Parts: sequence; C-alpha cells; structure tokens
Amino acid sequence: MESLQVELGSRSYPIYIGEGLLGQMRLLKKHIASTQILIVTNETIAPLYLDDLTLQLTPEFDVQTSILPDGEVYKTLGYLNHIFDSLLETRCNRQVTLIALGGGVIGDMTGFAAASYQRGVNFIQIPTTLLSQVDSSVGGKTGVNHRLGKNMIGAFYQPQCVLIDTSVLTTLPARELSAGLAEVIKYGAICSIEFFEWLEKNMDKLLSKDVHALTHAIKTSCGMKADVVAQDEKESGVRATLNFGHTFGHAIETHMGYGEWLHGEAVSVGMCMAADMSNKMGWITDADSARVIRLCEKANLPTKKPAGMSSSDFIKHMKVDKKNTSESIRLILLNKLGKAVIHDCLDDVQITRVIDLFDEVQS
Amino acid sequence: MESLQVELGSRSYPIYIGEGLLGQMRLLKKHIASTQILIVTNETIAPLYLDDLTLQLTPEFDVQTSILPDGEVYKTLGYLNHIFDSLLETRCNRQVTLIALGGGVIGDMTGFAAASYQRGVNFIQIPTTLLSQVDSSVGGKTGVNHRLGKNMIGAFYQPQCVLIDTSVLTTLPARELSAGLAEVIKYGAICSIEFFEWLEKNMDKLLSKDVHALTHAIKTSCGMKADVVAQDEKESGVRATLNFGHTFGHAIETHMGYGEWLHGEAVSVGMCMAADMSNKMGWITDADSARVIRLCEKANLPTKKPAGMSSSDFIKHMKVDKKNTSESIRLILLNKLGKAVIHDCLDDVQITRVIDLFDEVQS
Repeated sequence: MESLQVELGSRSYPIYIGEGLLGQMRLLKKHIASTQILIVTNETIAPLYLDDLTLQLTPEFDVQTSILPDGEVYKTLGYLNHIFDSLLETRCNRQVTLIALGGGVIGDMTGFAAASYQRGVNFIQIPTTLLSQVDSSVGGKTGVNHRLGKNMIGAFYQPQCVLIDTSVLTTLPARELSAGLAEVIKYGAICSIEFFEWLEKNMDKLLSKDVHALTHAIKTSCGMKADVVAQDEKESGVRATLNFGHTFGHAIETHMGYGEWLHGEAVSVGMCMAADMSNKMGWITDADSARVIRLCEKANLPTKKPAGMSSSDFIKHMKVDKKNTSESIRLILLNKLGKAVIHDCLDDVQITRVIDLFDEVQS
Repeated sequence: MESLQVELGSRSYPIYIGEGLLGQMRLLKKHIASTQILIVTNETIAPLYLDDLTLQLTPEFDVQTSILPDGEVYKTLGYLNHIFDSLLETRCNRQVTLIALGGGVIGDMTGFAAASYQRGVNFIQIPTTLLSQVDSSVGGKTGVNHRLGKNMIGAFYQPQCVLIDTSVLTTLPARELSAGLAEVIKYGAICSIEFFEWLEKNMDKLLSKDVHALTHAIKTSCGMKADVVAQDEKESGVRATLNFGHTFGHAIETHMGYGEWLHGEAVSVGMCMAADMSNKMGWITDADSARVIRLCEKANLPTKKPAGMSSSDFIKHMKVDKKNTSESIRLILLNKLGKAVIHDCLDDVQITRVIDLFDEVQS
C-alpha cells in the first residue's frame, strides 16, 4: 500500500493507493467520527461493491445508502437533493460521514452534499474509475452542473481521506479507462516531460490494465495534483494549470449535452486543441504538438473536435468558463512539453482561427 | 453613521449602521471588486428600493437583477437555482459581487448562492427588515430549507460588508417589526441583563419606530452577535447559544409549513418555552421566566404554542435539529436572565412534560 499526503494545514488528508484496499476497512474507519455513515453511489457501482462495503462496516456503524442513477446528466441540483432526502429521512446529524463510492460524478456530488448538509459534515472519497482516482477525488473541488455551464455550482471542500483500490479497475469498461488516461496524459503534458515520456513507452501496459503500470500512473498523477493543490487550494494561481484541455473540453461537453462525450474524451480533444494553439503561438514545435495528439490517439481517445461544432459554439461556452476574468478567455497552454502557462486571450480572433483550422470528426 | 467590525482574520468585515445609508453608495463601492453586480431581491422590496439602488450604481457598474417571490416558502434549492440562472445568463464571472437586498430569506439565499457560484464569489448584505438587520445578515450563516428541516442546506460564508439603513424600517409592516424584536429580545435574554432591562423600558419607543431607540437596539444586537461569531464562527461551541428559542421555534415553523408563522414569531414562542424549561430545571425563577413572556407580549409577539401541536410533533422536528449530537436534543436554556447555557437532553421525557404543560393558543 502506498500513501501520499495532501498538505493543507488543518485540512490535510491522506491518499491511500493499493490493491484490494476495499477489503481493508481499518484505513477508512480511523477517519469516521461517529456511528452514522451514508454511502452515496450509483446504479452501476452498487451491485459491484455496495453489499461488501456495507457488510464490513456493519454493525459497528449505522450505514445508510443513497443510490443515484449513473451519468453526468444526473449531476444536478435536483439529484443532489436526493442525497439530502436520504440524510434527513434517516436523521443524520452533523457528525455523519458521507462516503462517495463511484466515479467523478458521485465524488463531486457527495462532496458538495457534505459541504452543504447542515453547513458542512465529513466525507470520504472511494473513487472507482481511473479518472476519479487520478484527478477528481483529490483536491476538494466539488459541485454540480447547471444547464448553462459545467461545475458552475459547488464548493472547495476537502475529504477526510481518499481510498484508491486499484483492483476496482478490473471491472472498468475500456472506454472509461481511456477517459481516465486523458487526465493522466494531462499531468505529463503540464508538469513533467519525464512522466510524459514514460506514458509514451507504457501506454500499452496501461491499456491492458497492468497493475504495476496503473499504480505508478495513479501515484504519479495524485502526487502532482497534491503538490499543486497544496500550493493553491482555491485556484487563485497555479491550480488553474490543471485545467489544461478543460476550457475547450468543457465547451464540447456543454455543447454536446452532458453525457454524450465522457469528460476525459472532451479533455483529450481539448488538450490537442490547446497543444495546437501553443504551437500556433510559437511556444512548442510541430513535433511536440504532434506528440500530444499521438499519445491521446494511442490511449484510444478522440483527438478531433465534434462534427459541426463551430468556433462560435466554442467561444460562446468558453466565455462562461470559471477561470475567466472580465471579457477575456483564460486558456492553459504549454510553453514547452511538460510545462503549462496561463494565457489570457484578450480578443477572440486568435482562438477562432485555431478552432476553425482544427480537424473535425468526419460526420 | 456607526460602524462595527466582525473580527474573523482575513475574513473580517464591517457593519455600517445609519439613517439613509442606501443613499451613500461610497460605503458599498469600496467593497466591490469588479464591474459586475447582481442584485438579488424580492417582489415586495424591488418596487421600493431597486430602481434607486441601480441608478446610483450605473453606469459605473454593470448591474443585473434577480427578483424572487417574497416568502420563506420560496427559500428552496429550486428558487436558489433562479439566482444561478441569472448569474449564468448574464455571464457573471468569479469577480462578480452579489448584493442581497431584502430580509432574512433573501440574505440567506444570496449568501449561499455566492458561496456556491463558481465555488465562491463576493457578496454584500443590505438587510431591509429588523430581523435581518439584527441577526441573519451578520455572521455568515447562509442556506435554504429542505421540506424535512429548516436551513438544512447551506454554508458558513461571510459577506464583504453589511449595510444597515435604519430608514428602510419606516416601510416595514408592524408584524415584521415585532418579528425582528424577537431576535433583539433574544440578545438581552442570553447576553445582557442590562440590555434586557433597557428593552423592558423602551419597547414602546421601538414599536413606534423611534429612530434613536431602533439604532441603539440594532447596534447592541449586532455588537453582541459580532462578538460571539468572532469567538466561534462555525458553531462548535458558544455560537450555539444564539439559537435560544430556535429549537422549539424551528419545530413550529417546520410543523406549520414555512411562511405561516414568521421566523421571529416562532422564536418568540420558542424563547418562552425555553425560559419555562429553564424555570422547571430550577435555574431561573418564576418571575424571570414571566419577564421573558411579558417582554415578548409587549412586543406584540405570540407566546403560546400553536393550537393542536403536540409534544410528539415538537420532538419529531427537534430530533433533526442541526445542533444535536447522536440521539440527544440540544437545547439552549438560561441559567440566569442574561446568560445562556447549552443543555443536552438525553431523554425526551423532560422536554415532553414541559411542552405538554405549556399553554396553547386557543383554536
């Protein structure tokens, strides 16, 4: 078992990474304050792990469950209220611990429910997808979508711990595995050329779910994220670089309707577009821009923008991105492979040109 | 103009109190970070003050408005989403400042919207009822109701400043004035026998809206609240004493349906019940318990529980109160007039007996 620490003063917490951790509840139990637990999960994950988890925690704890439908389309205030219904119907008090058992949607919603229930209760992340293991379960970004923008409603709210059981990836569909690899590639692109090169060499192992390769990728990604979050919890500076590929990506997700494209797939195209723009700015070479695209392709990720999505469609959605200040669009670009920069585009012309020239999926 | 400071380190902020402050926008402007403003108000307050406020802020600022229906019954996640609609439709970014122009409902909802929009933006409180001026606008408790419990969903989130214009009380209906006086009486009962005695002497002046008496009552109440909040922002201890009368009161509000009883009216009965229980515990004399009831009566507030509301109705709602730990009910009682104590009732028998014996409104 490996362990990392997210250093945030009184809000510091550990990330545990290892095979079969879901069978080792002692790690979890020391982070639970009272006897009340509400496990929040979804209809896909519940049949796989919920009974076993509940069995291990009963009768020591009073375990309640809230099971949501599976998918980004349910990441709304309305479905968040289902979690509050469960909490109130079972009379959970301020000492309750919420456990998020699922992917990014469950983690984000459970975290925001924990932040808001009675103005704040404890929660624990048990991410069950690669994407949530390497990215969304760490760092305390929680929230739900609004029809006019992704993750527009939420809170910065840190969990008590993150428990990453690499064994759960054996049941993860290939498409979801690839979506998670998009965020893994992101860390290489923005933080470390060495890790990027390791990914170029080991992508086949990752796709075949080699446990050592996956553990290395998860640990490296979580370590980089923990470092950035410790420096800038509330994204007043460097944390924004973790959004590499996400500005274009969120525009795709919002435009296509939540759930059509997986988050990681949209981020993949977004990273390719951001690399292309970095190249057009003269910051990275044609070859390095092509390496980003090739690595995404190797991970079986899309690298072309959605058919029929125009530059004005992109710009419209990018204008409501959380990173923006005033009328400019804030983009995360690369000034070399392995190093991100924050770039404010004061006019839309340059972005428009990059988007217009970027390849489209053949419809 | 009087000014108080809520001391919370980097989150400290001023409370400005005075006649005609709504005409002095310089106080407000220095707390606004960018050009974007969203004023949140309701259908009752908008015709009175919105145009004038907007006029004073335009064209220096880009002022948008979100007008909600008036009443506690609209303090829900669904109506909160109307504020997010306005923010996103007008493309407000993270530098936006929300202004809450209204009573407690508007203040609580706007504060929670500010806490949650893009994971946190600035907001300013302009309370327009006595109740919100002396209590809910100060201290950063924000949130909405759930059908199963009042204020169950929310955040601790502090404003940039609180602007209290005593002139707005001239348009406040008598019933709302009395409701506000309930919270004023609360501060006397829990913090200061001198203030309680001042209220006994000056209640007529307050009811006739004497501006000097009102200003003194507001300043004293805000000062006491600011002190308590500075000691215990997130209610891990002493702040709970500010809930004197609120445990019984919330039960009444939830049982009767939000909006039937004003919050202050429910708190008035709750304080009388809590004083009665303090007396039954042997902590305060019959005479002091009677003084609490008499002062509430003098403020034209109800002092008897709703007709037909049984002790089991009370207990059911009190069990989901935010202050509770495990199965006990946490009550705020008086160990003398002017001094509150936190009391955990480990069984329901004692509370049941007090409630059963407490006078009911004749139906």
